[in-house]
Amino acid sequence: MLPRLVPRQPLRLFRWQAACAQGASVQRRTWASRIPRLLGPWGPVGNSPPVCRRSSSTPAGSPEVALTQERYPVKRLPFSTPSEADLAAFERIIPGRVVTDTEVLAASNVDWLRTVRGCSRVLLRPRTSEEVAHILRYCHERNLAVNPQGGNTGMVGGSVPVFDEIILSTALMNQVISFHSVSGTLVCQAGCILEELSQYVEARGFVMPLDLGAKGSCHIGGNVATNAGGLRFLRYGSLHGTVLGLEVVLADGTVLNCLSALRKDNTGYDLKQLFIGSEGTLGVITAVSIQCPPKPRAVNVAFLGCPGFAEVLQTFSTCKGLLGEILSAYEFMDAECMWLVRHHLHLTSPVQESPFYVLIETSGSRAEHDAEKLNDFLEQALRSGLVTDGTVATDQMKLKALWALRERISEALSWDGYVYKYDLSLPTDTLYDLVTDLRARLGSQAKHVVGYGHLGDGNLHLNVTSEAFSRSLLDALEPYVYEWTAGHRGSVSAEHGLGFKKKDALHYSKPPAALRLMQQLKALLDPKGILNPYKTLPAQA
Amino acid sequence: MLPRLVPRQPLRLFRWQAACAQGASVQRRTWASRIPRLLGPWGPVGNSPPVCRRSSSTPAGSPEVALTQERYPVKRLPFSTPSEADLAAFERIIPGRVVTDTEVLAASNVDWLRTVRGCSRVLLRPRTSEEVAHILRYCHERNLAVNPQGGNTGMVGGSVPVFDEIILSTALMNQVISFHSVSGTLVCQAGCILEELSQYVEARGFVMPLDLGAKGSCHIGGNVATNAGGLRFLRYGSLHGTVLGLEVVLADGTVLNCLSALRKDNTGYDLKQLFIGSEGTLGVITAVSIQCPPKPRAVNVAFLGCPGFAEVLQTFSTCKGLLGEILSAYEFMDAECMWLVRHHLHLTSPVQESPFYVLIETSGSRAEHDAEKLNDFLEQALRSGLVTDGTVATDQMKLKALWALRERISEALSWDGYVYKYDLSLPTDTLYDLVTDLRARLGSQAKHVVGYGHLGDGNLHLNVTSEAFSRSLLDALEPYVYEWTAGHRGSVSAEHGLGFKKKDALHYSKPPAALRLMQQLKALLDPKGILNPYKTLPAQA
Repeated sequence: MLPRLVPRQPLRLFRWQAACAQGASVQRRTWASRIPRLLGPWGPVGNSPPVCRRSSSTPAGSPEVALTQERYPVKRLPFSTPSEADLAAFERIIPGRVVTDTEVLAASNVDWLRTVRGCSRVLLRPRTSEEVAHILRYCHERNLAVNPQGGNTGMVGGSVPVFDEIILSTALMNQVISFHSVSGTLVCQAGCILEELSQYVEARGFVMPLDLGAKGSCHIGGNVATNAGGLRFLRYGSLHGTVLGLEVVLADGTVLNCLSALRKDNTGYDLKQLFIGSEGTLGVITAVSIQCPPKPRAVNVAFLGCPGFAEVLQTFSTCKGLLGEILSAYEFMDAECMWLVRHHLHLTSPVQESPFYVLIETSGSRAEHDAEKLNDFLEQALRSGLVTDGTVATDQMKLKALWALRERISEALSWDGYVYKYDLSLPTDTLYDLVTDLRARLGSQAKHVVGYGHLGDGNLHLNVTSEAFSRSLLDALEPYVYEWTAGHRGSVSAEHGLGFKKKDALHYSKPPAALRLMQQLKALLDPKGILNPYKTLPAQA
Repeated sequence: MLPRLVPRQPLRLFRWQAACAQGASVQRRTWASRIPRLLGPWGPVGNSPPVCRRSSSTPAGSPEVALTQERYPVKRLPFSTPSEADLAAFERIIPGRVVTDTEVLAASNVDWLRTVRGCSRVLLRPRTSEEVAHILRYCHERNLAVNPQGGNTGMVGGSVPVFDEIILSTALMNQVISFHSVSGTLVCQAGCILEELSQYVEARGFVMPLDLGAKGSCHIGGNVATNAGGLRFLRYGSLHGTVLGLEVVLADGTVLNCLSALRKDNTGYDLKQLFIGSEGTLGVITAVSIQCPPKPRAVNVAFLGCPGFAEVLQTFSTCKGLLGEILSAYEFMDAECMWLVRHHLHLTSPVQESPFYVLIETSGSRAEHDAEKLNDFLEQALRSGLVTDGTVATDQMKLKALWALRERISEALSWDGYVYKYDLSLPTDTLYDLVTDLRARLGSQAKHVVGYGHLGDGNLHLNVTSEAFSRSLLDALEPYVYEWTAGHRGSVSAEHGLGFKKKDALHYSKPPAALRLMQQLKALLDPKGILNPYKTLPAQA
């Protein structure tokens, strides 16, 4: 049994003790050994791979993921088909790095959620932006479609081909270019893995301004291209603020060098912004300059049980007031999420069963000050009944174990069946109503309807599972979820982007004039439309 | 005599006592009474107007500012000339708000630095975005050039006409649209004055994420259009991160409503980013949604003397480490700056004469924790000889008086003569070398060569004064300053933008491919080039 925060008594910082961490680490080991060897180059197969490819759990010969072109009503655009002559040309540009091996291609054609699948027959692995420029110049001339691919950890089918697009992988563009030890400015190639960059800058007294569940595989270039949000958004804000510069190769092979390492640069239009969140449809990001904040000296995580969603919200207000500038994350999950991580991943809850759980992280420069702030908050939260049970961790391993409960929900969901994922921005006060509403609407059609996410940012991850893909369930969900969201002035994509799967929901969040301008920008920057086609922009009428 | 920090003794927080504040407040009263009445509508004539229009000090009939078209080699583009019929048409769109009064126009045709002057004969004061849309639709059809104008506090001649462009003032678009008291999201019209917004949100427990010397006059729309940096950049980052949404009227009168009030919205291209820093050349910002951080409960300002620039840098490293998340500003100024504010504004230095001064602000949620951190930092800085003298303030009035020493340098400079202003981003370690280098280069040609700025952001404000505008001095400064900056991989505009005066220096900071893309974006969004012509983009060859 874990130590519990006891209401109405003087509080001290409670230390994490045991059980919950173990489930996580056991699972992690098991998981690591399951990663197919061929995935090596796309991510470090270390101790804590954060994303789950269910392929590893299905026996050889199990049904393949349906081809996107068969499951969805999408028509191939009139791009050229890569020929033997094209492959030979690529071979001249990047000798020995033109991949046609079917096993590698099988893995790169399907998304990790196993919901969309393309049929590309060639994957290219450039090492430099000049090589990318050369490749794109060639593809542009030959009218060959290109699917830029980072760690292939996206949630919306943006990172894999829809048809036979050439996969342009950033996996070998994984060099740190420079790091400034006073300012904390990191400049690196686009294919650097987020977790490796984190380790790199942490060893130098800084942290990456973003962190996400897929950190062990995702590439920084992909993070920027998809404007990834994640777990540190509350504290360090959006990539639109923390990215200082980008190097981008445009569709025709032009290298756009806006790789400024300066904190401030107000010389004309901030062109890099165009590419942040454009999902590879306007250019291929080849290098990133990013501002890393100093590494906090003290980090605490509190994992608390709340009796209702109203209390989750009030706890947020209370902790914003009392934790102030040291609050670095405020996450929530419902009881069904906890059930999923316990059931599928064998993690153990560190607190009594509750309708809701919140994870609060503080990051500060002085341990005793932070502890005092956190204790005062916990005391008030317990005393007022906002929180009924809780535990606090300060050491690295235990922090990670608490975080795993929240970070691995997505993985647990993928073990539960086919997952319908929605990533919505909503006013916090009505945010959870959609989950309860949907549970009533779907009844037994769904296995689970769960809600969790970055409450501090008004970001709900709404997930619905069923045994297998079901058209009727999808029809019950869409456009209902989008209409509900638009009706509450929310956004149909808070952080996952649009990719292939959400692009036709764009009009729920953007007015016609904005859609038109998006189309015009696409036409300006990629007149032939070769970059990541069928993504981001709605199919034209 | 003010209390001084005494080295090698136990420290407590020193309180500000007297003298320095008085100079400031006396000056402020004097200043307020000097503002010409006709300027009323463009800014509140309150207790602390922060910008200086020297016109008020020059006797009536004193020489006018030279017309831009006479001083600079610029040719009028073939726009239509506003006719009586046009004025009548505007009168139908915004009855009673078409201004042709020569006194009002005189003030709106010249920048506050009195360095550039246009000859517009009409100023329009719409109240709504629909009116702006109607006006632009008309101007677009008639090929009439338009100069959007906020508080007219810009530093680079971007806010006044070059020839006879129609001035489109946001002064009457000054309504708060909504404020969310939990999230701190403010939505307001573009013409709201920054200081009034600050007061509005501070009364509700939040602060604006930006603050600048011109706050008493500048409009939030202008701040966003110019991507203003300012005094809180170090803590809250760039407007690219804090602006959540914009409503923009495009050149042809299309209203682009991207006025999201959500903290996260990842639905396609982040179109608002295009307009942040575009200086009104791509569209007219009519409303802004912005994320306001919680108001800090404790604010401290330390004003310190440093024996050399190396110590200024080391003090910065030391305070970053010891103040951590509560550090909210790190500003520096050299001895000549202090001389100017003492001489022209009669402010008193609160510390012994030193070669350099730094102003450090902390903003936190708990006074005793912040005081302890600040004391530890001051103790270390004094003990190690980084700082030789200093004073600390915590109450509001005294904080403001210390800030005035730094904020009013620009005003003091404008009393010193004609000012050549450079706003550069440079690596901090070589940042001040340019100032000493220039002093040697210019010798007696210049009255003063001073350096100050936002050191924490690597932002140097380099200013040179002379009795009157001198072509030979300008030639000694340019392109030397820009070449020096480019040679050190800096930026020729850290936060002031390009406007009219810096647009031709753009190529020192952006490669040809970026310039080309800027021109393409301009052509896409404003094909007739009617929006703020002669600004931001270099004159085409």
